Amino acid sequence: MTQIINKPKDAVSQVLNGVAFIHQEKLERLSNTGIIKKQQIDDSQVALISGGGSGHEPAHFGYVGEGMLSASVSGPIFVPPKTAEIVKAIEAVASEKGVLLIIKNFEADVTNFLEAKKMAQQSGIKVAHVIVNDDCSIEEGSYKKRRRGVAGTILVHKILGAAAKEGKNLDELKQLGEDVVASMNTLGVALASGKTIGQEEAVFSLEKGEISFGIGIHGESGYRKEPFFSSEYLANELINKLLTQYPVSISELPFAIMINGLGATTVMEQYIFANDVKRLLQLEEIDVVFQKSGNFMTSTNMAGISLTFLALKEKKWLDYLNEPTDAFAW
Amino acid sequence: MTQIINKPKDAVSQVLNGVAFIHQEKLERLSNTGIIKKQQIDDSQVALISGGGSGHEPAHFGYVGEGMLSASVSGPIFVPPKTAEIVKAIEAVASEKGVLLIIKNFEADVTNFLEAKKMAQQSGIKVAHVIVNDDCSIEEGSYKKRRRGVAGTILVHKILGAAAKEGKNLDELKQLGEDVVASMNTLGVALASGKTIGQEEAVFSLEKGEISFGIGIHGESGYRKEPFFSSEYLANELINKLLTQYPVSISELPFAIMINGLGATTVMEQYIFANDVKRLLQLEEIDVVFQKSGNFMTSTNMAGISLTFLALKEKKWLDYLNEPTDAFAW
Repeated sequence: MTQIINKPKDAVSQVLNGVAFIHQEKLERLSNTGIIKKQQIDDSQVALISGGGSGHEPAHFGYVGEGMLSASVSGPIFVPPKTAEIVKAIEAVASEKGVLLIIKNFEADVTNFLEAKKMAQQSGIKVAHVIVNDDCSIEEGSYKKRRRGVAGTILVHKILGAAAKEGKNLDELKQLGEDVVASMNTLGVALASGKTIGQEEAVFSLEKGEISFGIGIHGESGYRKEPFFSSEYLANELINKLLTQYPVSISELPFAIMINGLGATTVMEQYIFANDVKRLLQLEEIDVVFQKSGNFMTSTNMAGISLTFLALKEKKWLDYLNEPTDAFAW
Repeated sequence: MTQIINKPKDAVSQVLNGVAFIHQEKLERLSNTGIIKKQQIDDSQVALISGGGSGHEPAHFGYVGEGMLSASVSGPIFVPPKTAEIVKAIEAVASEKGVLLIIKNFEADVTNFLEAKKMAQQSGIKVAHVIVNDDCSIEEGSYKKRRRGVAGTILVHKILGAAAKEGKNLDELKQLGEDVVASMNTLGVALASGKTIGQEEAVFSLEKGEISFGIGIHGESGYRKEPFFSSEYLANELINKLLTQYPVSISELPFAIMINGLGATTVMEQYIFANDVKRLLQLEEIDVVFQKSGNFMTSTNMAGISLTFLALKEKKWLDYLNEPTDAFAW
């Protein structure tokens, strides 16, 4: 499929210039970097930064705004930003209360963000980090949970963003982030591969009518392929796998859920799936008190969907989810 | 490509149930209808209704909310809602100040909405209508402008919604709507056809690397096919065609622009295109004072993009565009 691009090597930079143009009232790009930041940084609160490779839009720049992130750092497609750029982002938003890094659990991301944290600390900035690892899919062969950071990361942005605005300090935010991550699970499914920008070939291949469970946001293969039967069947499979992650005592808590389109899944399909999720969770007597559906963290134009569950251990978490934000993709 | 659906005949109904679930705090579905409405109808203002065939999500239910529509009516895929359902929607939201119908200019839509208007008037409800015909593409053969209602319809929802909330009466809103429509032009381009829900076949076909100018939102063929060169070239072509719609005196006014993804175009592509639009409009010395980019009115999962220009004849129009709304897709 033809893509609306110019030279592929300029794609990420042009995307960021486009973001700065469309959202010029509130956001700005630090020139020649992958950094999108709020124009007005509030010095009285902890600043939040997230980022990663490009190809997951509107993550993460879509979550920069009042009550969410202070800045995002975008690397090349599916490649994390360089350490030096992360340091630059930290310096650009740092307040006396410090900076919290929200990192998706991929080895290269974690390495670069932690390296940047160390460098910023050496120059006297208070920095802490939270690693998000909501993916509960299983590795083929080893049967280990892969625990990558996927769509649930956006819920972490929202909860920590509202808590930072409320005035929580760096230690409190780190603790809150870790508590939220420990209560959160996401499982995704792919129906067709996307093509990354500037590439002719699909990232992976599936037979017609076949779906892949536990797909990653970079096209990492899933843990099982099977024929597609129906949205209801799919919802049932994902819900069952997600609920097994929670002991019964936890599954009695109120839940927040997020349905995330991976890029090429239509809005119609997302709401059909949402309707099935609703009915099946009613049958399971799960108390859903917060629900959201949309394209929050994509994998270029992959066809597929993910479902995130967050057991709300504290009433306050729901308040944080419901706080207003002007981040454009929330 | 596999689609996340159950029985195709149930698709639209299940979509609307999904919408009512995800947005349960503010919206509701009138059961067994295509109607999504605000839970709280403000009797002190004119109520606004829009609608049409399904397949254009998040249009139009995504624009139901405070300061935009009071209700939307969805028909089957690419088929307008039945007259009786439109009447039902009018009755459900009618206030003493009346109801304004915002209709996209397709023959079957206009017929059903005007029939419904007549029936509601006979039962004593004040109803007026505005027809949106922003598409400035050319019909092959006759060389006439096709003037269908496309993405610019969303700007009409926003401006009229804010004006209705401000207290304008039915006649004033109709006049305002017609003035806005007369200042607005949209041109779209397709890079690949979508597949409608439940269909195996693409709606139309394009050679690899070929694009089609002036495509409709139901897969109506464009007015010219040519090879794709670059986002910049595409932006240049669309801008040139759009600017020829305005006399020089008008092109000196401030403009609002909207970039609309048609379904399968990635967020990266949309912002790359936005960046080209920005640079080219600067060269043309067009004063852009409002800009928006996203998937506002899609054609299922068609790959493509449209560009809408609105010459802001009144400063007030910009205020209306900037007024807050809680409609989830704005």
